[in-house]
Amino acid sequence: MSETSKVEQVDLVQANILAAGANKKSVRVVNGLGSLMGSKNMVDVDFEEDSNMDYLLRKDQEEKEKYKNAKHISEMPWTLSNWHLHINWLNMILTVGIPLVGLYFAFSGKVPLHKNVLLFSIFYYVLGGVSITAGYHRLWSHRAYSGRWPLRLFFAFFGAASVEGSIKWWGHSHRIHHRYTDTVRDPYDARRGLWFSHMGWMLLQPNPKYRARADIADLTDDWIVRFQHRHYILIMLLSAFILPACLCSYFFNDFKGGLIYGGIIRVFAIQQATFCINSLAHYLGDQPFDDRRTPRDNWITALVTFGEGYHNFHHEFPTDYRNAIKWYQYDPTKVFIYGSSLIGLAFNLKKFSQNAIQQGLVQQQQKKLDRKRSHLNWGTPLTQLPVWDKEEFKKQSKENPGLVVVSGIVHDVSGYITEHPGGEALLQAALGKDATKAFNGGVYLHSNAAHNVLATMRVAVVKEGVDAAARFAARRGESLEGKKLV
Amino acid sequence: MSETSKVEQVDLVQANILAAGANKKSVRVVNGLGSLMGSKNMVDVDFEEDSNMDYLLRKDQEEKEKYKNAKHISEMPWTLSNWHLHINWLNMILTVGIPLVGLYFAFSGKVPLHKNVLLFSIFYYVLGGVSITAGYHRLWSHRAYSGRWPLRLFFAFFGAASVEGSIKWWGHSHRIHHRYTDTVRDPYDARRGLWFSHMGWMLLQPNPKYRARADIADLTDDWIVRFQHRHYILIMLLSAFILPACLCSYFFNDFKGGLIYGGIIRVFAIQQATFCINSLAHYLGDQPFDDRRTPRDNWITALVTFGEGYHNFHHEFPTDYRNAIKWYQYDPTKVFIYGSSLIGLAFNLKKFSQNAIQQGLVQQQQKKLDRKRSHLNWGTPLTQLPVWDKEEFKKQSKENPGLVVVSGIVHDVSGYITEHPGGEALLQAALGKDATKAFNGGVYLHSNAAHNVLATMRVAVVKEGVDAAARFAARRGESLEGKKLV
Ligand code: HEM
Ligand code: HEM
Ligand SMILES: [Fe+2]
Ligand SMILES: [Fe+2]
Ligand SMILES: [Fe+2]
Ligand SMILES: [Fe+2]
Repeated sequence: MSETSKVEQVDLVQANILAAGANKKSVRVVNGLGSLMGSKNMVDVDFEEDSNMDYLLRKDQEEKEKYKNAKHISEMPWTLSNWHLHINWLNMILTVGIPLVGLYFAFSGKVPLHKNVLLFSIFYYVLGGVSITAGYHRLWSHRAYSGRWPLRLFFAFFGAASVEGSIKWWGHSHRIHHRYTDTVRDPYDARRGLWFSHMGWMLLQPNPKYRARADIADLTDDWIVRFQHRHYILIMLLSAFILPACLCSYFFNDFKGGLIYGGIIRVFAIQQATFCINSLAHYLGDQPFDDRRTPRDNWITALVTFGEGYHNFHHEFPTDYRNAIKWYQYDPTKVFIYGSSLIGLAFNLKKFSQNAIQQGLVQQQQKKLDRKRSHLNWGTPLTQLPVWDKEEFKKQSKENPGLVVVSGIVHDVSGYITEHPGGEALLQAALGKDATKAFNGGVYLHSNAAHNVLATMRVAVVKEGVDAAARFAARRGESLEGKKLV
Repeated sequence: MSETSKVEQVDLVQANILAAGANKKSVRVVNGLGSLMGSKNMVDVDFEEDSNMDYLLRKDQEEKEKYKNAKHISEMPWTLSNWHLHINWLNMILTVGIPLVGLYFAFSGKVPLHKNVLLFSIFYYVLGGVSITAGYHRLWSHRAYSGRWPLRLFFAFFGAASVEGSIKWWGHSHRIHHRYTDTVRDPYDARRGLWFSHMGWMLLQPNPKYRARADIADLTDDWIVRFQHRHYILIMLLSAFILPACLCSYFFNDFKGGLIYGGIIRVFAIQQATFCINSLAHYLGDQPFDDRRTPRDNWITALVTFGEGYHNFHHEFPTDYRNAIKWYQYDPTKVFIYGSSLIGLAFNLKKFSQNAIQQGLVQQQQKKLDRKRSHLNWGTPLTQLPVWDKEEFKKQSKENPGLVVVSGIVHDVSGYITEHPGGEALLQAALGKDATKAFNGGVYLHSNAAHNVLATMRVAVVKEGVDAAARFAARRGESLEGKKLV
């Protein structure tokens, strides 16, 4: 019989083109620096052409030509003369430089922190944070639910305040991360270490060889996404820095405080929290659903990211609008989405079935258990034991009087007679005999533990008892691997 | 082939006689009220004959005759005229009456509690408690280790201070409890409810029909056990009441306080704590090793009984000198025994192998997991699916275009196309085709969850792919139960 079904196979090339969205003519979106703060070179989706994809594929081709003979900078060792080429300076300024300036003003005491500004900054942190988690992430990247335009507008504006790039760029990278988790194409490849997945991926020049594409036609179909991407730099400056500064100036008469704490330092905090999802959430915590890949559940990361820390669940059930399913797990983003659905701003909330979720848990637990089981001594497998008939058993018993039959299996209990918790006499009385009934309740209903101890003493199978032995082994979870005993 | 091996069976009658110790002529031990505070009628080991067993068997016989026609009181309903016959008045006085007197003196303020007496009482509680747990229980009842005579003397004297009967009586009941756990012969049968297993069993007249015997020849072989049993009433009065009263009188000038707090109330406390092992420890807590019987692990019971609360472990591994094996579990009795072994007072400490202990954990976890698994929908088992050849698949595809083959199995994804997290287009492109490769990494390496969702859509097996299907099912833990697919 042939290995594979003879039914026509799916055309993989064609399907991969579909998956990358390369079949679609995207609407024209003029570049507005929306990929600021991303590895622009890695998941570039800006274009000047009518079709996003045509432009990208052409650029891929150009780069291929360029690096045919020459090595890309990411493949070269760091030297005194080339180190500055390894670094993505724009990202360095946005995620390290500006925060340093802010921290200088804060810690030097030049801009003192007032209580009102602090409270405002925390409030504004939440606005920007939830816009990323409920908007950028669960709504746009994963289509875990649908949102009406006022909600989407809110997310687009305050999401920009977190300075993590445009929805379009963010969603594209994120879909690639999910499709290629833990591979060279994963932008934040967690296998490359904590630092790389935290900030390294974005501060260094990525290797264009490992570029990936994902279909984001549904994003560019949304006028809010297009608008935000086009005017990203303006919207970002406004929502991230100017608005908080002006609000603090108006209400608390503290423009500088608003700029430093409500702007720069708040942005720094939310950026770091988000980066933690790529680093810590792939590094620290439990793997209740699947441990073949790096994502992990961790309440600490959940705490700073409004519930995104249940990352093992999330990678397993990415289109679920929830990241946490237990009542005691912290997932305010889920509550926010659910709340929005109650007032009609969100709808079509998606959930994986409870059945599928429970299956994942059971499968992972089984895996862990099998691993534990494989480290223990369960006694010689029946298939590796010789088969004795009654005469052989009698003969062997004469040479070694310490033999006892239980459930069709011969055991050598010689070394156990003085150890037997039920006393020497009883075991002695069973030597050379079949003690199946006595062992199983006729005298004493032995525990599981006793069965396990017994199994370590196996020496043979009795011919007349092979069926009993096989049934007994099956009840114990031992597999005969399709082999017959005789 | 016959069910049972033809090897000679162990003689069950003979073996049960051995197990009850009925083959032995015990040394003569004159009754000294040592079974005080036990269900004397149930596990009576007093005798006036040369042989313990002859006497007991004769009494069994007498009782059998007596209740041949008449019902025993325990089988009769409670009435106004017979209620007092249901009750074991001696035990009632010892475990309820005297404590009530003590509590009266304490709460009425007639005997005030001084700090020194309190501290002494706690100290004395520990002496008596450890003598029960390390001595009565682990040393004598379970032979979990051996002890030199000074240690045994210590246990025999201070064990009597807890007023729980003689070692001989206690050990006998306890061995019966382990041999017949959760049966009518279990003196503290936990299935009869919390109250019965706590004190009911001892305050009521037990049914002699369910009397059991256990071999305690090793106990009567110990002169300390014989001596303590012979002079139990004296030793008990001395160690439980007179000594603490005198010590408190001598050191703190408080004879009455010593008698009430160091004697009566302390005894009441230790009795109740011990009773908790029969009641709470069979009722409240986890069952990490075996859930076929009632014993449970519980740190609360462990706390008041010097570590005896890990009762699920204990019933599974009764001859282990430990009751708790994790470092964070509270088992000071284990530490006491280990300490005694360091100074040579204890030796031959027995442990079950770590292998056997881990096996118990794994087996119980497997049981729980299987239970969870059986409540979930894993898709139609392969053996219940029709087998289609390629032509049949083509024909069926014409009628229902929503069919996709993955791993030799036909799935009807009609209802899932718009739901597919990877987009409609990709699924659409797979209709009527074999998507095995695309599904398994060719386009996207689907998660476990995706495989589980897929399984719920099964409709048939492709003839050319039965092998692939069987292998796939095996990897998923589905058993074909020895059936062939074609
Ligand atoms: C053949 C190998 C045997 C092994 C490995 C074995 C093992 C054990 C173990 C581990 C216990 C401790 C309690 C438990 O875990 O359930 C036990 C208790 C006991 N065994 Fe065995 N046993 C064997 C044979 C027998 C036979 C043939 C008899 C009777 C004819 C017997 C009678 C008892 C009794 C009566 C107890 C109860 C002791 C008590 O709780 O007081 N055993 N045995
Ligand atoms: C036949 C039934 C199918 C089912 C039940 C199914 C199920 C799923 C599920 C549950 C996901 C979410 C992510 C995950 O759990 O791994 C997913 C994602 C995906 N599926 Fe499928 N799938 C099917 C067929 C296909 C086929 C035939 C293809 C490709 C030709 C495909 C391509 C994808 C891709 C590319 C994703 C990734 C989406 C992303 O993370 O951006 N699926 N699928
Ligand atoms: Fe991730
Ligand atoms: Fe995600
Ligand atoms: Fe028990
Ligand atoms: Fe015990």
